[in-house]
Parts: sequence; structure tokens; C-alpha cells
Amino acid sequence: MISRWLVVLVLMGAAWAQNVVHYQTTNANVKYLFATAEPVARLKSGDILDTNTLDCFGNAIKKPGDTLSMAKGDNPLAGPFYVEGAEPGDTLAVKILDLQVDGDTGVGAFAPGFGAINETNYTPMLHAPLPEKVWIYKINHDDNTATFHALDSDFSVKIPMHPFFGCIGVAPAEGEARSSVVPAEFGGNMDSPEASVGNTVYFPVNAKGGLLYLGDGHAAMGDGEVAGTAIEVPLRARVQLSVIKGRTISWPQFENDDAIMTVGAYRPLDDCVRIAETELVKWIHRDYGLSELDAYELLSKVGKLHLNEMVDPNYVVVASVEKKYLPRRK
Amino acid sequence: MISRWLVVLVLMGAAWAQNVVHYQTTNANVKYLFATAEPVARLKSGDILDTNTLDCFGNAIKKPGDTLSMAKGDNPLAGPFYVEGAEPGDTLAVKILDLQVDGDTGVGAFAPGFGAINETNYTPMLHAPLPEKVWIYKINHDDNTATFHALDSDFSVKIPMHPFFGCIGVAPAEGEARSSVVPAEFGGNMDSPEASVGNTVYFPVNAKGGLLYLGDGHAAMGDGEVAGTAIEVPLRARVQLSVIKGRTISWPQFENDDAIMTVGAYRPLDDCVRIAETELVKWIHRDYGLSELDAYELLSKVGKLHLNEMVDPNYVVVASVEKKYLPRRK
Amino acid sequence: MISRWLVVLVLMGAAWAQNVVHYQTTNANVKYLFATAEPVARLKSGDILDTNTLDCFGNAIKKPGDTLSMAKGDNPLAGPFYVEGAEPGDTLAVKILDLQVDGDTGVGAFAPGFGAINETNYTPMLHAPLPEKVWIYKINHDDNTATFHALDSDFSVKIPMHPFFGCIGVAPAEGEARSSVVPAEFGGNMDSPEASVGNTVYFPVNAKGGLLYLGDGHAAMGDGEVAGTAIEVPLRARVQLSVIKGRTISWPQFENDDAIMTVGAYRPLDDCVRIAETELVKWIHRDYGLSELDAYELLSKVGKLHLNEMVDPNYVVVASVEKKYLPRRK
Amino acid sequence: MISRWLVVLVLMGAAWAQNVVHYQTTNANVKYLFATAEPVARLKSGDILDTNTLDCFGNAIKKPGDTLSMAKGDNPLAGPFYVEGAEPGDTLAVKILDLQVDGDTGVGAFAPGFGAINETNYTPMLHAPLPEKVWIYKINHDDNTATFHALDSDFSVKIPMHPFFGCIGVAPAEGEARSSVVPAEFGGNMDSPEASVGNTVYFPVNAKGGLLYLGDGHAAMGDGEVAGTAIEVPLRARVQLSVIKGRTISWPQFENDDAIMTVGAYRPLDDCVRIAETELVKWIHRDYGLSELDAYELLSKVGKLHLNEMVDPNYVVVASVEKKYLPRRK
Repeated sequence: MISRWLVVLVLMGAAWAQNVVHYQTTNANVKYLFATAEPVARLKSGDILDTNTLDCFGNAIKKPGDTLSMAKGDNPLAGPFYVEGAEPGDTLAVKILDLQVDGDTGVGAFAPGFGAINETNYTPMLHAPLPEKVWIYKINHDDNTATFHALDSDFSVKIPMHPFFGCIGVAPAEGEARSSVVPAEFGGNMDSPEASVGNTVYFPVNAKGGLLYLGDGHAAMGDGEVAGTAIEVPLRARVQLSVIKGRTISWPQFENDDAIMTVGAYRPLDDCVRIAETELVKWIHRDYGLSELDAYELLSKVGKLHLNEMVDPNYVVVASVEKKYLPRRK
Repeated sequence: MISRWLVVLVLMGAAWAQNVVHYQTTNANVKYLFATAEPVARLKSGDILDTNTLDCFGNAIKKPGDTLSMAKGDNPLAGPFYVEGAEPGDTLAVKILDLQVDGDTGVGAFAPGFGAINETNYTPMLHAPLPEKVWIYKINHDDNTATFHALDSDFSVKIPMHPFFGCIGVAPAEGEARSSVVPAEFGGNMDSPEASVGNTVYFPVNAKGGLLYLGDGHAAMGDGEVAGTAIEVPLRARVQLSVIKGRTISWPQFENDDAIMTVGAYRPLDDCVRIAETELVKWIHRDYGLSELDAYELLSKVGKLHLNEMVDPNYVVVASVEKKYLPRRK
Repeated sequence: MISRWLVVLVLMGAAWAQNVVHYQTTNANVKYLFATAEPVARLKSGDILDTNTLDCFGNAIKKPGDTLSMAKGDNPLAGPFYVEGAEPGDTLAVKILDLQVDGDTGVGAFAPGFGAINETNYTPMLHAPLPEKVWIYKINHDDNTATFHALDSDFSVKIPMHPFFGCIGVAPAEGEARSSVVPAEFGGNMDSPEASVGNTVYFPVNAKGGLLYLGDGHAAMGDGEVAGTAIEVPLRARVQLSVIKGRTISWPQFENDDAIMTVGAYRPLDDCVRIAETELVKWIHRDYGLSELDAYELLSKVGKLHLNEMVDPNYVVVASVEKKYLPRRK
Repeated sequence: MISRWLVVLVLMGAAWAQNVVHYQTTNANVKYLFATAEPVARLKSGDILDTNTLDCFGNAIKKPGDTLSMAKGDNPLAGPFYVEGAEPGDTLAVKILDLQVDGDTGVGAFAPGFGAINETNYTPMLHAPLPEKVWIYKINHDDNTATFHALDSDFSVKIPMHPFFGCIGVAPAEGEARSSVVPAEFGGNMDSPEASVGNTVYFPVNAKGGLLYLGDGHAAMGDGEVAGTAIEVPLRARVQLSVIKGRTISWPQFENDDAIMTVGAYRPLDDCVRIAETELVKWIHRDYGLSELDAYELLSKVGKLHLNEMVDPNYVVVASVEKKYLPRRK
């Protein structure tokens, strides 16, 4: 059945491939909530969105000496983008076609109260906070690297870039409006390196039009995003938006030619794993025909778990399996 | 300082490289505890141990229809192996030189009360347990694969083998004796795929001689070992044991030519990550000279987190960083 | 400084004690979000609100054989109630003056996917869900009890009633809108038995007017609300609303003549405890003058921790200390 | 069936009530492990043990200025005490008859790396540790209080004493030996105020004779023991030890005339609650005849959860229900 959807998608993509919607994101039109709100642009299913995103600090931090207080808010979002025909119960597919770092500077920061191994708002302790720090990364477009410079010694090292959206998500269910720092069932601040070129992200449609938001570009990120930031950058982006009618999912999913992937987002990490794994077992069972226990056993042998981040209010784990280990899709 | 240790190790290795201690493990001499106990063999620092391990079921399950009740106990261990000169406060280095699957059959099993997405002894629920299941994997030594056969359909698929010790550890501190199903500061049932050829594992020495135990061979395992088992196999093994005098560590570590890795073992996973990350920041700070906050920032950009297992009484996460991102070791 | 506030409160209370605002809640005017929304009534600081709340099922389940599908939504809320002068950064005080069970029937229910020791949406497992069940409790206003009748045997027992609001909260910060099943910094579905007559609840004011919501009355509840419901009832309620200008809090607090109490709401429970305890240490330090470490030590000897619920999307713990163990308030 | 056991116990108690075994505990004969070890005394089922315990510091800290480094080890234990006839699969009942604070001084301490809202060994962070602190409590036997004196101000307050064993447990299963700071299935460092006069504690018998250990007396403790210590005191104790043949339990339990109570010990607290609640549902089902779902529902209305401690390597929660809410015991 999925294969038929894919055929439809491909045909739709072919038919409308030329239809590109351009939208310019600025500090004047960003949002700070994943919510049901007035769309900034409307696309047909299969249209390509060509837009840009600001970095998580609204592009406010640029050079050594700049401080976090200069940021206007966390994770300004482009959008929402409305996709015709998307209705609650459908799935919105976002195929990421191109991502380019949109500038010559990246930012890393340690913000007190934010991080995996220091006291935070939700794991508070009596210790005095660690001090705020900002690292500036020079972007080299020629060799596709960003350079880390230590603050307390003269060490520097080049880091290969792998651009992705830290924030990608839709309007939440039941009229909720959620801060742009939170990941949950609607996607959001997932900080998933999987949100990069070559992958398609699927979201549950909770409101008419789906209402996609994008932001928080990352040039590179370590697993867990442990100190609280990636290499934070503005992005230029091209994504294709498609509606999959009648396919209902509960949590975001990723897919590419080689693998299927599921997202679990909450805390503790134990529950992220439980969410992602049960979703993956059910996906394999439904679309690939293995029994649930056979799928469970197989994942215990060849499945992957990717701890995306452990610093946002909710944590994120992606479970995946390569398609080469699965039966042919039904 | 480390470099001097390494020189010493290399010299010791060179001097004693020919010295190989052979030990044959059988169901008659296995142990089921990581504990201070009478050693089965004594080695000099730098000696090579050539031995074998039984699978986690004591090699009792061999063919379709065999049941978990045929296993004599969980995770029978080879050892303990005493290394001359190892004293509390030292570090024991175990370099894994060779691992071969020792047979033509691997076993996977779902045991009620054991697994990441079903009720267990320590995450109990009111649901009736899922049913016991056993999968038999045919080992193909020619193409280095094990074959999964679904129980509820006729699907089968080959899985590349990556043999490693599920159990590798030493006598715990302060006279504790711990079950062979538990991972903790002494290593133990870490189910770390990092315990494979090419890597060195470091353990804190808690008792005279270190007292190394080995067991629970895995031919392949998915992240999290979610259904409770890997492809369980007996192993033939060659490891080199060396004492690093005066280097004190709190948790197991791994190292190879390319990376340094730290282990966090407890629950929830959040605390595994916290343990592994703080250990890694401190290691980078001590041996590579970055300040703690610079190291923290760098890991947030290029660090890795590997969720080894979430099914044993304690869970295990390995944090790592490639050496190419670090300053020269002091 | 607090004492001056209290004097002001008392004077305000005295001046306006007669001013009672009446509001009738029905299924036609309830809300299902804690959000910034059009108020249903406006009060002056010190006014008394006389209103009623529907039970968590919208009063739809009344007799044996009724099913959960008859409920129109979870936790319909009365409100929001606007309090003049309340601005972000202030604190809203809600003194609970009177609560009466508004009917002769209470409801308990087991809803699949909801509960502390069964698989749920956020702790999912592969087990088939436990079956839906509904228990009807007869309310006896004369002896202030509700009667439990076993479904699977003929046992019944009377339970003393202690009515409280399961839901009490304000509009969240930063424009968020949260489902009425969630507790968080804004209060919400805290399921705190502390929300009962004789106690005052304090909330951070996040939006102009504070915007108080009330609902989800409970006639009695065990710690943890482990099977997912209390004895669910409609309530008649009288509460006094007062603004404390210039006092800023981060999480809800309770207070009565004998004790001060702080709320921690997230998951795992470990983090609920951390939030509530750090808030309590800081409160003692700020208003009672003990150093933070003296306060920490004292709580380790005489503090209380009350696990309110472990079944909502976020869990809730209340930490408290009796005032008799504290210095005189500054 | 239980009632028959109780009759037997009563008879046994009556028959041997006079038989009191005296044992004097000193720093020369204490243990630091719950383990299968040579007993220090042997009792018959029904015998009374009259002994004493040292405080958690081996009675080494006595006056202002004393430091934690003066302690010889944590939680020195009296025992093990062998009870004739106890065999694996049986239950050991320990009825606490009398507990007296054995001295005029109690100790509280903040030890870096130990506590609920500071970085610890198992929830490590990059913050510098909080400073070590010691508080000395004067014991007043006349009014049954211990007095807290603030270190950083001149405040003092009397705290009523409620003496209990912080450590009470038996030899673990399967030959494990566990540190005296750990609570688990064998009991151990549970820090349960329920281990006080009037209550009976039940333990699974894992080794011949049961092998009871006692220690870590507390004169008073707040919920969670949040800063890491109670008012630490030596105790004089009288307990009656009885074997219940053929009754098998998995986790410790408490009972008194009014209530039955179950222990969950691990982490996070969520899993402590799950363990304690499932054990309590099963106990009610087995001995009082309610169906599991009726028991679950009833606990959701009248059950109690007591968070004993969140500072030891494993955390402890006690779930309980008053017998007046249960059917007659079968």
C-alpha cells in the first residue's frame, strides 16, 4: 500500500516539480511557537519550498565578545507553511532537497541552566551555574568545514559540516501551542541530524494545512548536543512538501532509500527509546509484514539507536533499521 | 605522562609478546559472579591470554525447539585471570587481539521479564508477560554472516558478524560480588560492541591481580540489545593483559588508534550519559589539555554517544571522541 | 517583606470580602487548554469567585455500563478568570475557601494507555492494553464518604472524602497553550490533594490577568493516582483570588497556617523531586533566612515529599516543611 | 493461609518469648557488606535478638569540628544473624520490638557527591562539589527530641525522635555481596522510617539462615533523606526473628496492625513506584482476594506512596494500604 503512495508521490512530484514557492524569512516575520497560526505561504502537495532560516539566536551573535543577551529569543521559526489538502489524520512528508549554510560564521554557546552535565531548569541543583561562554566558528565553504577555536588555549580544529534543521515540525494536536525549544509528537526542536539532505521527514497532520515550521540550522552537532548547542547557523533550504492522505502516524518518522527511522521525544531517555522502538516494531509489522516479536528480535540484532539530544526540555532518540534487513514492503 | 606509560607498555609487550597463557573454559569451571575469587590462571603484565568462552546459555541451546530452561545459568564466565603486579589504584588494560565465533550456531531469545519494551523485573507492569521465543542463527564462517529466520513467516536475512564480549570485567571494589548479568563500575555485562578486536578496554583494579572475567560472546547485536539478546555464541579469544601502574580510573574506558571512549552504566539512561560524558570531559582535560568547558563544547560538536544496551539491570552508554579532533596527548 | 504583603492581602481581603463573583460552568462554556484566552469573568484582587466545575468526563458517566467513549474530552475547565492588576512577574494567590462535591455519584476508570503500572503513550510497550473498566462510587454527603464497589467480587468499602481540584492553573508563559491533561510550571493537571480547603496556591503570572482555570474535581485520591483516576466528581467551589505584586516565582507553591510547599512537575520523578526541593531550599533561604546548606540539612531531617501523581504526561511531587521548624519569616 | 502462619508465629513467639539472644556490636566485629558470611550468632525462629548498632560513621564523629574523614567506613553492620530453619524460598520476619537511641549525640553531614540536589557519583556534573559540612544534634532523652543548630546563623529547633534502622537486610540472592550503602531486593540501606517499633519487616531468604544485618540507626529523617543523612545515631535494639516456611517474596515488605506495605528499590524513582505498586497489587490479590484491576483501582483511591530516600545508589519507595480498606484476609 505504501508503494502505491510512493508512486502517487513520485507522480505528484514529477507533475509539480517546477512549482517552487519562495519565501524570505527575517527577524520581522519569525515565530517562536509551534502552533495553529496564520500561514505565511500556501503550497500544493508536491510543491517545493525555497526559503531560509535564521540561526537559533536570530543571527544576533556574530563575533567574539558578543553575548547571549543579544539574542532576541530562542529558535526563531520560519513559517507556518500551509499545504493544501492536509487534514488531521493525514501525514505530511517533507523531503529535504538542499541545505546550505547561509553565512560565514557559526556560533556555539554554553548558556547557564542548559546542558547535559550541568544543573538545568528541569534538573536543578544547588550548585552555582557554570559561566556563560560563546565560541565563534569560521565557516569554510570551500572545504565544507567549520573551525573550532578553544577559548582557554590556542588549539583549533576543523569540523566537517553536515547541515540540518534543529527545528522542524508542525502545529501540535488539540490546539496546543508549544515553545520553539521543545520537541514532541509534532516534531519541533528535535535537533535530529537526520533532518538533512536525502531524508524525508513525516509528521502527523494535526491542523488543516499541516502548518510546517523550520529553523535552528546546525552546521554540525555531536550526539546528545551535550553542552546545549550545535554549530548554530542560518540556512538556505529547499524542501518538497507532500500530503499522504489517509496514513496516520503518532510520532515523526524519517526515511531514505536505505532506512526507516522513528522518533521518540520525552524524558527520561528510557521512554524516548521505548517510544521509538515500539513505533519501529509497529511500522515493520504493518508495512513489511514481520510479526511484532520477529521484528523485535531482528531489531535486537541489527537496529540502531541514535541519541540526538539530551538538553532540550524533552530529549530525542531516533531508532532505525536498514531496509536491506527487512522483507519487501507490502 | 601517558606517552611514557605507553612506551613502557610497548616495551613490556615486546619483551613478553611470545608469552601466551592457554586456558580452556568449560561448564565445569565457569563462574557466575564478578568477584574476588581464586584465579584460574596467572599472567604477567604483557602476557597474552588464549582462551574460549561459552555462550550466555552455557552452550545449552542448539536447535529449534530448545528452551531457555535448558540453560544452566546466565552468562557463565571464564576466569578470573590474575595479572601479576596489579593492585588497587592501578588500571588493567585488556587489548583484544582476536575473536572467533566458536561454533556453527547462534541463539537469540525473548525471555519474559527481559527487554526494553516489555515489562521486566525492574520495570514491572500488570500485563501478562509476552511468550518465550527462541531463534536459531546459522553461522557462515565463509562470508562471516549469521542468518536470521523469522518464526512467524518464511523471511530470512544474513547479518554480518562483529564478534565481541558481552561480559568483560574485573572483581568489583570493596569486596562486592556481582551477578554476571550486571554491568557497573567494574565492567561486567556491558554488552558493548566496543569490546571487539582492535580496541583496548581499561578497568579500575579493585583487587590484587585485577581478576579479569570474560564471557557472553556476541556475533552481532543491535543498539540497545532491545529484545534482550544479541546473536549469542561461544568465542575463541586472544587478549593481551597489561597493568598500568599508578593510573587510576573510576569507570571502564575503551581506546583504539582513532578514538577514546568512556562507559556509563546505571539507570536511567540519562545518568549513563552523565557518567560517560563527565568521564570523557575529564579525560580530555587531563591527557589532552583542553579546559573542561572547551572539551564540553567540542563534544557538543563532534562527540558520539552509543547506547549499548537498555535491558540488563543497569543500562550502558559509551561516549567517545575521535582523536583527530583533540590536541596532541600530553 | 512577605509579612507586609500579607498585611496588604488581609486589608484587601477585608475591604472586598463581600465582593463575590458568581460564574456558572457548563459543558457549553468549558475549555480544554490552559492558554491565553478571552476571560469568562473579571475579578478584583481580593474578590471571591463562586463557581462550579464539571468532572473530568464532562459529567457524562453516571452509572454502571457507561463507557469512557461517552466523555466529550478530558478535564473540561472552568475559566479563564481574569484578575485585575495581575501582570507577568507577579504572583497569583488562590485561597481555597470551600469545596463541595456537586452530585451523588463519583467515577473511577481504568483507561487503556493511562496508568502507573501499565503501558502508556509515553511508556509504551508491546503488551496488549489492559481492558477498560469503570467503577461508580456512591457519594454519601451525610457521613462524607464515597463507596468503592469491586467489579469482580462483592466487596465494598467506604472512603472518606477530601475534595480537591485536580486541575488548577493559569495561562502558561510565552504564549504556550497546553492541554488540560498536563501539569507544568503554570500548574494545570497537578492532581495535588494540596489543592483543597485551607490551602492557598500561588502561581506565576505569565499573562495579563493571570487567567485562572479550575476543573477535574476529586472526592478522594490515593498517592500517585496510580490507576489513572481519583474519585472523579463535579465540585461547587469558593476561592479568593489575590495578586501579589512584585513577587516572582517559577513554579506553583502551596501554603497554609502550618506549612510551606513547593511543586515539581515533569518526569522522571527524580526531576520532580529536584525541582520541588531546590525551590523549597530557595524559599526557606529567601524568606526565612537560613543559608541554603542549613536549609538543605534541615529538610533532610524534617521535610516531606508527597508524590501526587505518576500518570499524567508530566508527574507531580510536592515538597513541604512545617513552619514550626523554621525561623521567623523575614 | 496467612492466618494459619500467623497462628504458628504467635505460638512460636509464645513458646520462645523468653529466649533472648544478646550480642554486642563494636567496631571490631562490624561488616560492610550484605553477604553470605559466617554468622555472629544463631537464633531459633521466634527468638528475640537484643543487640546494638553503631551509627553510619562507626560512632567516630562526636563534636563540632569532627570531619567525615574520621569515619572508618560507611554503615558498619551488626551481624549476620543466622535463624535456624530459614532456607531459600522462605520469608524471614523481623518484628521490631524496641529501639532506643544509644547516646547523647546525633550527626548530620553533607558529603560532597552525595545528595538529591547536588552532583553525585551516579548523577555527575561539571560543577565543583558543594563543601563538606557536619551538624551535631544534641539528643534529649527526656522530651524525645534532637536539636538542630544552624551552622550559618544562630537558629536552633527541636525535632521529635522516631528511631529506625537505616540498614536492615539479609544476604543477597545468588551469592552476591553488596555494599552496606546499597538497598535492593535483599533490603539493605533502605533508609525506611517504616523500619521502626511496631512494624514487622519481611525479607526473602536467599541463603541458609537468612543472615540478617542491622545498622545505620536514624533518630529522625525527612522524606527522601535529601541532603544524604538522617540524624545519625547508635541504637539499642530488640527484634524478634521468625521464619515463615514456604512463603516466597521477591522484595521486602512491611506490616503492622493497620497496614501492609511493599518496597521498591532501584532508580529512577518511577521504577521504584512500579515495583512497589505491582508487589502491592499482587499481595492484595493473593491474600485478600480482590482481582488485580479492582486492587489497582482501590490503590488509586486510598493507597499511599512514601518516598524514603533518593540519595543512595538505589532509591527507595514504600507503597502501602490500610487494612481497613481491604476485604478480610484469606
